[in-house]
Amino acid sequence: MSDHFDLNHWCNHYLARVEQALDNWVSVDASTDLGHAAPAELMGAMRYAVLDGGKRLRPLLVFAAFEAVSSDLTLASVPVQGEAEAALRAACAVELIHAYSLVHDDMPCMDNDVLRRGKPTVHVQFGSASALLAGDALQALAFELLTPDASVVPVGRQARLCRLLARAAGCAGMAGGQAIDLASVGRVLTEDQLREMHQLKTGALLQASVMMGVACADATAQVVQDLQAYGAAMGLAFQVVDDILDVTADSATLGKTAGKDQAQDKPTYVSLMGLEPARLYAQTLYDQAMAALASSGLPDTRALQGLASLIVQRSN
Amino acid sequence: MSDHFDLNHWCNHYLARVEQALDNWVSVDASTDLGHAAPAELMGAMRYAVLDGGKRLRPLLVFAAFEAVSSDLTLASVPVQGEAEAALRAACAVELIHAYSLVHDDMPCMDNDVLRRGKPTVHVQFGSASALLAGDALQALAFELLTPDASVVPVGRQARLCRLLARAAGCAGMAGGQAIDLASVGRVLTEDQLREMHQLKTGALLQASVMMGVACADATAQVVQDLQAYGAAMGLAFQVVDDILDVTADSATLGKTAGKDQAQDKPTYVSLMGLEPARLYAQTLYDQAMAALASSGLPDTRALQGLASLIVQRSN
Repeated sequence: MSDHFDLNHWCNHYLARVEQALDNWVSVDASTDLGHAAPAELMGAMRYAVLDGGKRLRPLLVFAAFEAVSSDLTLASVPVQGEAEAALRAACAVELIHAYSLVHDDMPCMDNDVLRRGKPTVHVQFGSASALLAGDALQALAFELLTPDASVVPVGRQARLCRLLARAAGCAGMAGGQAIDLASVGRVLTEDQLREMHQLKTGALLQASVMMGVACADATAQVVQDLQAYGAAMGLAFQVVDDILDVTADSATLGKTAGKDQAQDKPTYVSLMGLEPARLYAQTLYDQAMAALASSGLPDTRALQGLASLIVQRSN
Repeated sequence: MSDHFDLNHWCNHYLARVEQALDNWVSVDASTDLGHAAPAELMGAMRYAVLDGGKRLRPLLVFAAFEAVSSDLTLASVPVQGEAEAALRAACAVELIHAYSLVHDDMPCMDNDVLRRGKPTVHVQFGSASALLAGDALQALAFELLTPDASVVPVGRQARLCRLLARAAGCAGMAGGQAIDLASVGRVLTEDQLREMHQLKTGALLQASVMMGVACADATAQVVQDLQAYGAAMGLAFQVVDDILDVTADSATLGKTAGKDQAQDKPTYVSLMGLEPARLYAQTLYDQAMAALASSGLPDTRALQGLASLIVQRSN
């Protein structure tokens, strides 16, 4: 562990890896282990949804958690073959799930949004039927990415990664949270109900990103528990900050339509708590995440610390 | 191997198992390993889409292939623990993927169909947003089902099953075929193009059902190759018969809207070849499937033979 840690440099290093890997894997390039004869138009919509946009927060959480766990050299003194490859695949898989959820969430029958990351949404660009299929295919591709030949990633890790991702994406995770969100428009929720909704809708996949990074290396039960707590706090903090930005930022900064929650009369942390208490709550969650990292005893959690700051202090 | 094989009895045995397993797993029942706090309305739409309907052809193909491979006692003289559980999970997982594809396929932005298995389609019953989410959640649930604790199904089989299913469902499988289908409305396709479309749209998942059954036991390379050929022929035959029934059966018998392809000016085997040549083609594919089973040398392929007859002779 060196004394100097440059978060920007760290992020740029991994962002470049993720962008290149997504560009390779979401393609008909037959030189990759996934490249196969997918119809050009469908692949075009999938690439449009995934490439050249997004903060890649979830992939970065995968790498940060993987690095933190790998820094515990008491468990394994030499890197195990296939671990880094597993982390890269996990990072891309979770981003594919995130990307598909945005495509479906933007569709006319859901939020009917026309702007995403400063570009027309997928259904505006390709039509609703293609958006539906592109989202469906991205979800399948995530699981394909996690299940290469056994020589590439050990099958035990493949199975664990699939399980973590499927749980986080499904009815008791992201899709479940979206269903609660859908049913809550125009209703008054308690803070507990709001927290449960967000824990599923956004929190589950963010927490899964952390746990998938953990699953790419070997960790003690204590480390697993502490990083679970870190992931839970960050998942919630992300949403609280999202709600704050929805009322304080403009569309150009956000790259998506601002003031949407208010216009749709959706319950948010800001509408429930007020702006300043929401800001304080985000800070409290940040402190909880830091405490969990300290408790883990891992020698190097600087990337996880840095991402926590980014999540709480981000402006879009 | 006994002399008498009753296909009806065989089907009913496995159908009962599949129905009960789906009823258990697509639920919020906390006593199963999947039962978790999914929102009631979302789970309601998922159950509506999956339970009490459908021929369960794909699950039956999983079991038939699993039984055929297991009948080769030269490889394993005693059943390996977890194999039957793996087959049950594979059977249900492939049915969940099939069910989700029907939900999304029926949506207004796709086929806009209001009748399925004699009931209102999911989006008619629950609204388009819920149909979208229910389909998404069913896909995730399929992969969750395939990745239980390592003590339940060995991780190597879990990984292989996930890979087979993800490939068959994704951009180079079912979703890809639907994209080609979407783009082909009103166009004239050659027989090769039509075959490629159906090989992806319907064939990939039917073939994957067979290969997932194979993956639940141990098989020689020759058996894998022959059952792949069986699956490919049956996947294609299924679609040819589907096209025949679309023009020869009525909606009540089909349980869905008849004459739909013609009304939408979609290319079909019947529109391309004519009715009688299409019937002959289905018979040829059946013969190919039987030849592949004979070539495999497996001692008991009676269930696979019976399902092939069912597929070619079905009336709905």
